[in-house]
Amino acid sequence: MATDQVSGPRVISVSRNLLVKNAEVAGRNRELFRRLGVFVANVLSSPGSGKTTLLQATLARLRAKAAVVVGDLATDNDARRLSGTGAPVVQITTGNLCHLEADMVSRACAEIELAGVRLLFIENVGNLVCPASYDLGEDIRVVLMAVTEGEDKPLKYPKMFKTADVVVLSKTDLSGPAGFERSAALENLRQVAPRAKVFELSARTGEGMPAWFAFLQDKLGVVT
Amino acid sequence: MATDQVSGPRVISVSRNLLVKNAEVAGRNRELFRRLGVFVANVLSSPGSGKTTLLQATLARLRAKAAVVVGDLATDNDARRLSGTGAPVVQITTGNLCHLEADMVSRACAEIELAGVRLLFIENVGNLVCPASYDLGEDIRVVLMAVTEGEDKPLKYPKMFKTADVVVLSKTDLSGPAGFERSAALENLRQVAPRAKVFELSARTGEGMPAWFAFLQDKLGVVT
Repeated sequence: MATDQVSGPRVISVSRNLLVKNAEVAGRNRELFRRLGVFVANVLSSPGSGKTTLLQATLARLRAKAAVVVGDLATDNDARRLSGTGAPVVQITTGNLCHLEADMVSRACAEIELAGVRLLFIENVGNLVCPASYDLGEDIRVVLMAVTEGEDKPLKYPKMFKTADVVVLSKTDLSGPAGFERSAALENLRQVAPRAKVFELSARTGEGMPAWFAFLQDKLGVVT
Repeated sequence: MATDQVSGPRVISVSRNLLVKNAEVAGRNRELFRRLGVFVANVLSSPGSGKTTLLQATLARLRAKAAVVVGDLATDNDARRLSGTGAPVVQITTGNLCHLEADMVSRACAEIELAGVRLLFIENVGNLVCPASYDLGEDIRVVLMAVTEGEDKPLKYPKMFKTADVVVLSKTDLSGPAGFERSAALENLRQVAPRAKVFELSARTGEGMPAWFAFLQDKLGVVT
C-alpha cells in the first residue's frame, strides 16, 4: 500500500526545503569541525539501546579530550549522566521534535570551548526513523542496535542502517537470556549495510569494548 | 535550549492542517468502529519492544474474532508472523513515514471484512515520538515499554506516555539480567501517566498474561 500520497505534495516540498537548508548548515558545521581537528560521531538508535551507557564507558576510558551534544525530547538526564565523566556536555531539549538538526548542533557547539577537543559525540534523539534524514556535519554515523530488540531491525528500518558507517550490537551480555540469533542479525545487517563496520559489545560488562576503543583511537590518529 | 524555531512557522501551520485533517478522518473511523461494535487498540512502542510477540500471544488465546492492521517502514515480516494466528492482517508499508495516520487505517480497514470482528489491533510504526500525535480512531492506546530499555522512558518521551490508556511493561523475564529497577520505572510512570493501567508481562514465558487477557475480555464485554 503506497502511503506517501497521504502527506500531499506541499508537505513534501517543505520537507525538501528544510533538508536543503539543513544540508547547508551541516556543511558549515563540517568545515568548522575539520578546521578545529575535531572528529565527530553522530550516535543513533531506538530509545533505550544504550547510547548514553556506551558514551559514559567510552569517555571514562578515552585519554583524548572529548565533548558531547545530547538531544532528547525532555529531561537533562543524559547530560547529567555524562557530565560525571568530566567532558563538556550540552543538552538540547527538542520538545516534540523527533530528531536533531544541523542548526541545533551549531548552536549547541557555540556553548562548548571546542579548541583542544578531539572527539565530539552527538547523541541523537532515540528514534530509528526521522534522524536518518538529517546530516549534522558528522564524520561518521554510529547506529546502535541492542540484542534485546530482535534480529530484524536493519530490514525494518533500512534507511537508518543504510546510512550507518558503524553498527554497534549493544547489550551483548543479554544475548543468551534474550534468545538473540546472532547469525540472523549479522546476515540482515550484511544485506542492508554491507560496508558498515560492526562491533559487538556490552558497555556494562566491558566485553567487546577494546575493539571499539581501538577503532576510535585509530580515527583520532587520522584526525591529527 | 528552545528548538521549535528551527522548523519555522510555515511547517508548523502545515502540521496543524495535517493534524486537523487527520482528526476528521479519525472521527469517521471511530464512528464506523462503534457502529460495527469493534473495539480498537492502537499499540505503540519503540522498535523491538515486543508489540508483535504480544499480539501473537494474544490472538492465539483470544476466542473473540480479531483483526490486525500493522504499520512498518519496510517489510511485511510482522504481517507474516501475525497471519499464522488465522486473524485477518493488513500490512501498511509507510516508506520513510514515521507514524500511521487515520487515512491509512481507513484504507487498510477497507481490505478487511470487519463484520463480526470484535477487536482490532493497530500495530503502529516502532517509534516513541511521532505516532503520539496521530489519533487513528482507536478506543485505547496501549504503549509498550520493555524492561530492557531502562526506567526513564516515560520522562524522556512524555507525550507518548501521557496519551497512554494502558502501559505494558514487556519482557519481564529479562528484568533480572537487565538489572531493571521496577519501582523507579513505576514511579516515573505514575508521574507522567498517573491514570494509565499498567500490566507487567512476558509474552514469551506467559507470566502476567492472564491479567492482560482479563482486561481485554472485560473491554469486549463493554463493546457488545
